[in-house]
Formats: sequence, C-alpha cells, structure tokens
Amino acid sequence: MENVLKVGSEPLRPIAQTLQCLARGEVTSRSLTDDCLRAVADPQGEGKRTFTRVYEESARTTADEVDLRRSEGVVAGPLAGLPISIKDLFDVAGETTLSGSTVLADAPSATADAAVVSRLRQAGAVLIGRTNMTEFAYSGLGLNPHYGTPKNPYDRATGRIPGGSSSGAAVSVSDGMAAAAVGSDTGGSIRIPAALCGLTGFKPTARRVSMEGVLPLSPTLDSIGVIAPTVACCALVDAVLAGQATITLLPGPLSGMRFGVLRGFVLDGMEDEVARAFYTALSTLSKAGAKVEDLYFGSLDRVPGANQFAAPEAFAWHRELLAMHGDRYDPHVAIRIRHGAGVYACDYLDLFTIRTEIMREAARTFEGFDAVLLPTVPCIAPAIATLEASDDAYFDANGAVLRNPSLFNYLDGCALSIPCHRPGEAPVGLMVAGLGGWDARILRVGAAIEAALLQQGCAIFS
Amino acid sequence: MENVLKVGSEPLRPIAQTLQCLARGEVTSRSLTDDCLRAVADPQGEGKRTFTRVYEESARTTADEVDLRRSEGVVAGPLAGLPISIKDLFDVAGETTLSGSTVLADAPSATADAAVVSRLRQAGAVLIGRTNMTEFAYSGLGLNPHYGTPKNPYDRATGRIPGGSSSGAAVSVSDGMAAAAVGSDTGGSIRIPAALCGLTGFKPTARRVSMEGVLPLSPTLDSIGVIAPTVACCALVDAVLAGQATITLLPGPLSGMRFGVLRGFVLDGMEDEVARAFYTALSTLSKAGAKVEDLYFGSLDRVPGANQFAAPEAFAWHRELLAMHGDRYDPHVAIRIRHGAGVYACDYLDLFTIRTEIMREAARTFEGFDAVLLPTVPCIAPAIATLEASDDAYFDANGAVLRNPSLFNYLDGCALSIPCHRPGEAPVGLMVAGLGGWDARILRVGAAIEAALLQQGCAIFS
Repeated sequence: MENVLKVGSEPLRPIAQTLQCLARGEVTSRSLTDDCLRAVADPQGEGKRTFTRVYEESARTTADEVDLRRSEGVVAGPLAGLPISIKDLFDVAGETTLSGSTVLADAPSATADAAVVSRLRQAGAVLIGRTNMTEFAYSGLGLNPHYGTPKNPYDRATGRIPGGSSSGAAVSVSDGMAAAAVGSDTGGSIRIPAALCGLTGFKPTARRVSMEGVLPLSPTLDSIGVIAPTVACCALVDAVLAGQATITLLPGPLSGMRFGVLRGFVLDGMEDEVARAFYTALSTLSKAGAKVEDLYFGSLDRVPGANQFAAPEAFAWHRELLAMHGDRYDPHVAIRIRHGAGVYACDYLDLFTIRTEIMREAARTFEGFDAVLLPTVPCIAPAIATLEASDDAYFDANGAVLRNPSLFNYLDGCALSIPCHRPGEAPVGLMVAGLGGWDARILRVGAAIEAALLQQGCAIFS
Repeated sequence: MENVLKVGSEPLRPIAQTLQCLARGEVTSRSLTDDCLRAVADPQGEGKRTFTRVYEESARTTADEVDLRRSEGVVAGPLAGLPISIKDLFDVAGETTLSGSTVLADAPSATADAAVVSRLRQAGAVLIGRTNMTEFAYSGLGLNPHYGTPKNPYDRATGRIPGGSSSGAAVSVSDGMAAAAVGSDTGGSIRIPAALCGLTGFKPTARRVSMEGVLPLSPTLDSIGVIAPTVACCALVDAVLAGQATITLLPGPLSGMRFGVLRGFVLDGMEDEVARAFYTALSTLSKAGAKVEDLYFGSLDRVPGANQFAAPEAFAWHRELLAMHGDRYDPHVAIRIRHGAGVYACDYLDLFTIRTEIMREAARTFEGFDAVLLPTVPCIAPAIATLEASDDAYFDANGAVLRNPSLFNYLDGCALSIPCHRPGEAPVGLMVAGLGGWDARILRVGAAIEAALLQQGCAIFS
C-alpha cells in the first residue's frame, strides 16, 4: 500500500517535494489525505494510539476543496493540500480540548479555533486529527495511560517510548499519517520526541507564535513548535504558525561558522549511542570547516534549581480540576502538578528576578556564536514496559530527557533537534540552540548542519 | 519675592505660558530655576519636607546651558529650560535611589539614569530635585516619618496631608518649586495628591512609559505619571515620558460627548465638600451638552478582593531588606508589605485569570463612552496630626483614598484627576478615566471638561 509521504523503507518525503508533486499534479491532496487516513486506520499500525481524534470526513472534504481550487488555478496557501496533525491541546471550534486527559470530558467545547489552528487552515493545510500526548503535556516521556502510548518507530518489537509530551505528533510524521505535526514545547516536548523518533523538531522563541486557544501548561515557558522530516519543513510550517514570511534556507558552507559546544551537566550521562553520534556529528561539522569550540556558561548549574515555574503555574490552572477529579489523572502527572501547591508567591516571583540575571549572562556568553550545540537528550528511547513498571524509572528517565531541552525554554530561546545517527541505529538528536529571537539564524544554521550530516550518511528524515 | 510659576495668589502658570515666556525672552530658564530654588529654600515654606535632595548646582548649570543655547537660536527640546521635579524612586546615575526610605542608604548608587529621567534631560528639562514620598510608595496618604510630611497647600494652618505616595511631587508644583512633577501611580499615587492639593494628575496606561530604572512597588500595577497645573501640562510632559509626539488638545465642545458616571461603592461615603463639588461638576458637564449617564459595572464589587497584587510583589522585592532592616521601615509600610509573605503562588496566579475576565467585562461595559467619571477620592485632605495619632485612622484614610483610583490600575487603564472645587474651598478631584490605550482620548476629553469647569468658576490650577 503506497504512501506518498513515506514510501516503504524510503526516507520520509520533505514537504517541499510533496508540495511540488501537488503543484505538478502528480498527486492530489485527496490521495495524500487518503494515504494518511489509511496509515492511521491500519490495524497493524500505531494510529489508534497516535490520534485521540481523527478528522476523517473534514480532512477529505478540505482535501477535495483544495484540489478543486487547484484545478481552477488557485493555490489555497503555502501548505495547500498538505496533511498536518495537531496536538490534542489546541482548541478547535465545536470540540472539547482534552489535552490527553479524560477529566475535561464534560467541559464546554471551544467556541473558536486556536490562533495556530486558524493559521493552518488559512494556509490550506488539511487537518488530519488531534495527536495523543502526555496528559496535560507534563512529562517528556510520552506515556499516556488513558489513550495508550504510541510506539517509537525505532525497534517497534521492543516497544520504546516515542518521547513526549508531543508523542503522537512525532509518530504521526514518522508513520506517514501527516506531513508535519504541530505541537507544544514547555521543557522539550517538541524536541524530545523528534530526537527519540529520528525526526526534526523546532521550538521557536515563545513569543513568536500565539498561545491563544492553547490549553496551557506553564505560560512562562510554553511555546508552539513543529515536528517534521527536515529543517526546511519545520521552517515552512513555523512561518505559517508565526504569520511570517517563509525564510529562504540556502544551506551555506559551514566554513566560517562558529559553534559553541556547551560544557557541563548537559554532557553528563550520555549513553554510548548518543555520545558516539554526538561526537561524530561535531567532528563532521569541524571537518566541514566550522569552528567547534567549548562553551562555558557560568550560570548553567543554577538553572535546574531556578527553573521552577511549571509546577505552580500548572497547579493554579488545575487546582479545581484536581480537587474534583484527581483520581482520574495520570498519577505521574498529578504528583508533579501538586508540587506547585505549596509554593509561595514571593518565591515564585524571585524566579523571574533570577531568570532575568541568568538570561543576561546567557546573552553575553552566547554572543559571537552562530549556535550552541548539545545532545538533545542523553539517552536513546527506553522501553515502554520498563518505565511503566517503576515510578523511579519513570521519574529518572523523565528528568534525563527534559534536562537539556528545558534549558532553552528557561532562557526563552529557540532550538532545533536534528537527527545525527546512522540509518538503522537508534535515533539521536543534535540540539542546535540559540537565544530568543535567533529563530531565522538557527533555522539557517540548522539547514547547513543538516546538509553536512546528510552528506556524512546520517539518517536525516528516515 | 516674585515667582514666575506662581505669582502671589494668582493661579499657577500653565507650562505652555511659561514656555512662551521663555521663547519670547521675557524670562530665562535660570531665573525660573532660581525662583524654584528660592521657594525650596524658603524657611517658611515646605521645601525641606518636599524634597529629599535638591539639585541646586546642576539645575543652575543646566538652566544656564539651555539659556545659552536659546540665545544661539537652539531650543533644547519640548521642555527646554522648564524646572521639573522627580520622585525619589527614579534612578539618577551616580546617586542611590532611596524611595523615601533610609534602609537603602548603603546600597550602591545607580549606574544609569532611569529611562524617564533621561527622556526629561533630552527634552531640555531642568531637574530641580528628588521629591519626598510615602516610603517605597506603599500608601496613598503621603506621610513620611523619615523626611517629614509636606503640608497640603490648602489650609496650611491645620496642616493637612498632601496625599501620596507622590506627596512632594504635588507640593513641589503647588508651591512653585517646579513647573511639573513626575511621579508614579500604582493605586492612585499621582491622582490622590493631585486631587487633595488642587492640581491635575495623569496616570497613563502603564505600558506607555518605561519602568526601566524605577524602584518598583508592584510591577503589575506600577505606572509613571505627571502632576501639573492643567491637563495640557500633563499631556506635554506625558508625551516626553512616553517618547511620543505631543498630541494637540483642542478642547472641543462637550455636546455629543457621552460620560458614564460609575455607580456603586465608588460613590459611597463622600464627604459633603466632595459630593457637592462632584455633583456640581456633573451638572456643569450636563448643562454644557454632554450626555451624563449612570454606568453600572457588574464586576465592580469583585475588584477590591481581586486586586491583591501589590503585597506579594512588594514582599518579593523587600524580603531581604525587611529581614535586615525591618525596624527602620515606616511600620505602616512594613506591615502592608509583610501581608504578602504568606500568599501562595497559585492564589497569586489566579489573580491574573480573574483580572483578565474583569478587564474583558470592563471593555464591553465602557465601550461607547467617551470617559468614565467618578470622584478621585471621597474625602478632603485629613489633618496630618489625626493620622499620625492613630493606626486605625491611618489605615481607614488610606483605604478611602486608594479605593477609587486603584480601580484603574487594576483595569490597566488610564485616568486624569481634574480639580472641580471652587477657589478657596477644600480641593476636590474629578476622575476622568478610561481603558488601557485611551490615553489620547482621556487627555482630549479632560481638556474639554477642564475648560467647562473653569468657565463655571472651578479652581483649576490654583
């Protein structure tokens, strides 16, 4: 059964190629959409655990409309006819936003689309469905006791976590159920599943993409990002989400670029596969002419203790729901939210003072570098069964995967995760990160890095 | 002893007239400045309690420079040569910002001017000195146990409060020590002293004027405003502070304008003088052709309970200082700050959710009105001795004066206080208020109201 987005063992098709096929009439949006819906419905596949709701009918209707308009010479927008999945925390008019939970089942339905949902529609995207996620987005592993956990595309026999919280988002792309996925990233929820599933993820500077109509986790740290096959795919969808012009990515030569490899705890505890892929990638960049230097950030060790926004902010939102339906929450999530109950306002406010200081130091330290490099996560995807068997294993793994990505939410920065493993190996992500507002730079630099890694045989978009 | 800004029992001179005198060479900036400094130094006057620091030397130097440049045909800026006072909470490079306290005496001095101080300098203003205030701006009465309390210009024999926290700001203008005063307003700190001292005060929408280099009280509510003789004076200085073009105030006819007189607790407990002046003003506006209607704001009664930002925000800033020097704080201020210690982050965060709701309702309710009218404060200025004699009297009076003005900090709005009493009577302020962003409208409407009140014999700028 052919799928234009993912043909057998071929690499995933980048969005630009799919758009070209559509433009040339080699494929219709309807057939793309049918491919995706077929992949979702495949009883051997992960569709059931990847989506909490599938827009079977409306997706086909939209696809037909886009095809009809195209036959009349009108291209509906920059994503015209492209199947896109959205995470379960975005409002869609007329539906109840559940955020991977069941406790909101009786909540009123949304009266309007989230700002990003309406931008996707305006850009001509075909919304395939709502993707599964860690309940309320509050864990980086992607386990979900209510809707099941979609299996990582790597080593499906073992059954490994996809990473989270945008778990279904990643698997929707890896398994040809969508050309790209829109999710959120509060501490790594885009980049972790991208890294663990061998995809590219982009977390933009938070303020660039509107949070209107998005169920919040931690408003101070929340951002809306994209998981897709390549850097250029992420850039294209990101521009739509931000309502900005698409930037041109002409992967320039790496020679002359200066990368800072962040030293310190972000390099601790790397599994062998990760260390091998990461240092090989650095060597590839160096050989391609980039200056790859050690980067010491004096305040790095202060960040984990100072990055305590999420629990009190989540508790403020969940307090009443927890009181009513606490027993229906994933206990791993409920306990994390409840940590916020006892936090004093003055301590919470102090966090902002400290953050401002640390961000100023980051601005001074990162100046002069084209990007900061570090492993996205220090491990390959653990087995689902192992984490389900033990709370200690769950929380250890959760801390491990969030550790590096959350740094750039804290710094209000932006970051890509780019695959840097070899085909057939366990997926490993290289984080290419920068300060707030560096988005265009990080996407351009990321495209150059991606090209160099691809040339060295890395498994980009496979 | 003549003072160009305030000649004997004549009304205060509006800034535009003084600027005209300067432009025509009828007066020099140096002579204006000398007048102000003489008023400050007058042993019979309030100068000692009005200023915490006088810029005698630098004021004269700046005045001479502005005069010299003017003689060469160069006007230094829109406030060229005009003596202006600044509240004791603005950073001035090389000085320690004390904020009406003594506990910061050993703190390092500021390395840069506050943004508004640097804008005033760029506009050619002559900074006369730093004005006294309620310690750390945390009371609306203006009592200060460290530097003394400047007496209200009304009924100096009794010795009445000037109102606060911008106490010295108001008296600096009423007593001809400055042509205008720049202060801050977190719950009424500009409008209360303006109302009680018979001056005009403008609290802009907070975000229009930078808080950089200002010692904060409550960042959620803080704003920077002006006390001056007239609405046009406030508009001129406000434009400089905001870095915007001066708006043209052509007081149009009041006919066709629609004013909402806010009903509810804001009208409770008015003293006779206030009620008389307020209702006479409404009748004047009505006779001048304005539609004066009752305005019911459904959520009004929720505001006092929901407006609890200041204590936790102040406590976060003051915690260490209080621990070290709590005994050196004004006990009235310390106790208010300490109320913030036990507030939980989740309760603090809930305040923002509620505020958003209430602000949305205000937007719907106030739509279609040119301005909202209410008494600035329900009382005339009480005697200093009465408030110093009893904590109950202090806190009752403080609650009374903050009650109405704080509503528009809560709603993130803007508001004028315009004198509406008769000459010789106790000063009473009419608040002309609006939503966030209505600044130009409120200033224009305020100028029209001021003209109508003046025509009816009100004591504007006297």
